[in-house]
Amino acid sequence: MNREAAPKGHSLWFIPDGYIPPESSGSLESHESVCVLNCNKEDVTVAITVFFEDRPPIERIEVVVEGRRTKHIRTAGLQKDGESIPKGVPYAMEVEASLPIIVQYSRLDATQPANALMSVIAFPS
Amino acid sequence: MNREAAPKGHSLWFIPDGYIPPESSGSLESHESVCVLNCNKEDVTVAITVFFEDRPPIERIEVVVEGRRTKHIRTAGLQKDGESIPKGVPYAMEVEASLPIIVQYSRLDATQPANALMSVIAFPS
Amino acid sequence: MNREAAPKGHSLWFIPDGYIPPESSGSLESHESVCVLNCNKEDVTVAITVFFEDRPPIERIEVVVEGRRTKHIRTAGLQKDGESIPKGVPYAMEVEASLPIIVQYSRLDATQPANALMSVIAFPS
Amino acid sequence: MNREAAPKGHSLWFIPDGYIPPESSGSLESHESVCVLNCNKEDVTVAITVFFEDRPPIERIEVVVEGRRTKHIRTAGLQKDGESIPKGVPYAMEVEASLPIIVQYSRLDATQPANALMSVIAFPS
Repeated sequence: MNREAAPKGHSLWFIPDGYIPPESSGSLESHESVCVLNCNKEDVTVAITVFFEDRPPIERIEVVVEGRRTKHIRTAGLQKDGESIPKGVPYAMEVEASLPIIVQYSRLDATQPANALMSVIAFPS
Repeated sequence: MNREAAPKGHSLWFIPDGYIPPESSGSLESHESVCVLNCNKEDVTVAITVFFEDRPPIERIEVVVEGRRTKHIRTAGLQKDGESIPKGVPYAMEVEASLPIIVQYSRLDATQPANALMSVIAFPS
Repeated sequence: MNREAAPKGHSLWFIPDGYIPPESSGSLESHESVCVLNCNKEDVTVAITVFFEDRPPIERIEVVVEGRRTKHIRTAGLQKDGESIPKGVPYAMEVEASLPIIVQYSRLDATQPANALMSVIAFPS
Repeated sequence: MNREAAPKGHSLWFIPDGYIPPESSGSLESHESVCVLNCNKEDVTVAITVFFEDRPPIERIEVVVEGRRTKHIRTAGLQKDGESIPKGVPYAMEVEASLPIIVQYSRLDATQPANALMSVIAFPS
């Protein structure tokens, strides 16, 4: 089998538990990352749709990840038409890519002087 | 392929490690969330069955999640016929939905002044 | 479809990162749990094989989980023929069950006054 | 079915969120582990390719895991042709094995006096 030819990953991923902690203390800053691994030779365009509890989604915020590279995307920096993800609000993400990728989601909560970490592989479709 | 037409997620999910920490200290309160992402246009009814180590399950506590919305459900607030999930007791959950959804489970333990976080994508069936 | 008739979960699961922290401080004790959800009406016998870095496995330590119940099994309490899992040593587990179950693995590390948590759904086969 | 004969795990795994914390404080040292479980009787050769955000990958750093053993590989110790993974830099890993294995990735962040833990089962292909 020509393993190089098989696609690595999936092109649709979901992250139900998104949350940007509103505060930081200590030496690290609270943040979340959507970590993308692009094993393809070609660049990939990633479109992130953001779902909320009480209002319509922000549709398809686009980010490019170069071929044979990773990108750890800070959610606080995502923007489209002047809209961004507010801090301290529960949300969720759908991540659609132009080629198969692998997606992991991690959060560092530095609300307290001691930091807390969580991480999941996103759910592929 | 018409991606819009493909179901996003599964309609049956499992979370074996449930636990509501009995105490909190510091600025945040210990809690767990069952985070649901509903990508469907229609509302979804989610039925959560709670399993214990030493007594029969609490069957099908129902929660509605609107179409194209997420809902981060606090387990401490789940109730049926006056029954709720006791704090400080190991339990597990089965989550059945009327349409495909994606489910993530997260716990913030603030027993100590420094918080601790854990998260998993629930197991789909 | 008769959902009740479909098996819920798998009968073989793997946990590569096992580790019982050797120390505790603060109000909680460091521990790990193998959390089993048994949705079957029948009791399930779970056989846990423990793999090490530098010696042969401890084969098939058995635990019973009742029907329609969960059990959060502390790894420090597992024993067979006088052998148990030593603290402070990297190990791994294979969990084989007599009927399909769902398995999650969680660790509370209370080495420091502030606790740390991690959790994964075990890998099914 | 002869369960012994079925392969346990997969031979290709991905970990998008790699990061070696640059600092430690308190009694534990920050580190990451790629935890491999090899249920085969034969030894397995594991080849780890490391992807970065802004430069070409380090290709196929090889590690041997003995048959019927686990190995918790510290990423900070991985080396090839004098190259190793720098601390404090986002990266990702592809793990390819000569036989099926199971892979879990865990990080202990001891940047602050209170440690933080995260863990995921790697994504199989």
